[in-house]
This record gives sequence, C-alpha cells and structure tokens, in this order.
Amino acid sequence: MSNYQHILIAADFSTHNTLVCEKAREIADRNQAKLSICHIVEDYPITDFAYEPMISVDIDMRDALLGSGKKQIAELAKIIDIPAENQWVEFGNPNHDIVRLAEENKVDLIVAGSHGRHGIQLLLGSTANGILHHAKCDVLAVRLQDN
Amino acid sequence: MSNYQHILIAADFSTHNTLVCEKAREIADRNQAKLSICHIVEDYPITDFAYEPMISVDIDMRDALLGSGKKQIAELAKIIDIPAENQWVEFGNPNHDIVRLAEENKVDLIVAGSHGRHGIQLLLGSTANGILHHAKCDVLAVRLQDN
Repeated sequence: MSNYQHILIAADFSTHNTLVCEKAREIADRNQAKLSICHIVEDYPITDFAYEPMISVDIDMRDALLGSGKKQIAELAKIIDIPAENQWVEFGNPNHDIVRLAEENKVDLIVAGSHGRHGIQLLLGSTANGILHHAKCDVLAVRLQDN
Repeated sequence: MSNYQHILIAADFSTHNTLVCEKAREIADRNQAKLSICHIVEDYPITDFAYEPMISVDIDMRDALLGSGKKQIAELAKIIDIPAENQWVEFGNPNHDIVRLAEENKVDLIVAGSHGRHGIQLLLGSTANGILHHAKCDVLAVRLQDN
C-alpha cells in the first residue's frame, strides 16, 4: 500500500492550531509527502431580525477578512515550512470547500483539529465532522484539549 | 512531538475492513507502535410492533454473536499480525465502548473505516462519526469506497 502523498491541513485558527500543524508536518515527513494548508473564511450574510438576508459581507470587509486569514496562515506555514504556493485561503463553506480543494489537488489525507463537543454543539457538528462526511480521502482528526 | 504509541483499529466487518487493517498496520510500523483491534457487537433488544422492548438478545444468541465476532476478528488480526491479547470483542454500544477501550488501554490513535453517507444515513451518522465526537485521542477515518 502506498504512503500518503499529499497531506492538507484544514486550519481553523483555534488556540491549538500549532499542535495540528506540527502533527501534520511530522506525518508528512514520515510519509515523504507534500504538505499544504488551507483556511476557508465563512461568508456569513448579516441578517435582520426577521431572518432575511440583509447585507452580505461587503467588498472591503471581505478583503480585510481574507487578508487577515492569509497573514495567519502564512505565520503557521512558516513554522512548519510550507511554501506560499501551498497555502490556500478562500471565502466559502468550510465543509465543502476543504473537500473540493482536497479533490482538486489530489490530497489523500486531510488533517483537522477536533474539539470536544457537548450539548447543542454535538448536534451542530464540527468542521472535522463535516469533512468526514464529505471527503473522498482519509481524514485525521487531531484531538484538541478544550479549555 | 512523540509518535503514536498505541493504535486501535475499530473493526466493523464491512467488505473493506482489510484495507483499514492494512493501513493501521502500516502506520503502526512507521510509528513503531503497538497495534490492537476491537469490535463491539451491538446489543439490540428485539422489539414488537408497538416499539416496546420484547426480548433482549438471549444468552445463547449472545454467545453465538460474540463467538462469530471473535472468529472474524481473529482472522483479520492474523493478516496484520495482532496477538490474541490485543483483540477485544465485546457486547455494547460501539461509540461509547470503543472510546472506553481506547482510554483504558492508553490508545492515542483510533483507526476506523468511513463510509460515504447520503440522505438519512448522513443524519444518523456513522461509527467513525460517533468516535470522533467522544474520543479523547486522535481519530483516523479511512475512506472506504462504497459499492
């Protein structure tokens, strides 16, 4: 059986992201695999009290959010030595766009942090959970200790 | 960062279980980790049409199910060289008892097969999904190609 060839980190900027990144780097090294990192900025429309979409994130705010995401990803990527061309920050739906990026780039392992879930959070699920349902490749959920 | 020390396969006897086992063996070898395998036989009470529990699985049937599970696990374990003392087959709730076994035995990575989910199956979730919610360690979901 072949090793993993291309590993993708799905970063969510939790406080424990460095742990996920370091684990992914270690697995990549052990598999001699290419390592990439992505972050999907969620495009929430701002809604009024009647739950009608009122205004979507405007262009300036969108640029600011994307810029901030790219900066944070670049900092993480520097720690674990991922070149700029393997850093992807986009607007979209995390569950679907992480899986799409993985497919487009022939990723065979997605690594994501997994938070403890309780009560309503358990019902709502998590990004790791959404990826797990939709991914066509293996998914490693790295357990993070929640505060 | 330390490697994985003890890897646990959560086997569900799908047609692709060998793939999950071989992948887990490969990861265990690469990490020089101990490898164990478990299977939890679900203890469904048999219900009547009014959805009242009518009869629970009786002792003979319980023994037969456990025996069959142990035989199948032993066959899988033989392929990937797991000794009898690291094979655990029990009655219970897969989500909770896999996680419990992992905690009791200081497992730091659970490996489970992940099937594609559609429609109602997506809502009901899967074993990999249940493990993901409850595990206190990392979880690798190995994507199985459904027929």
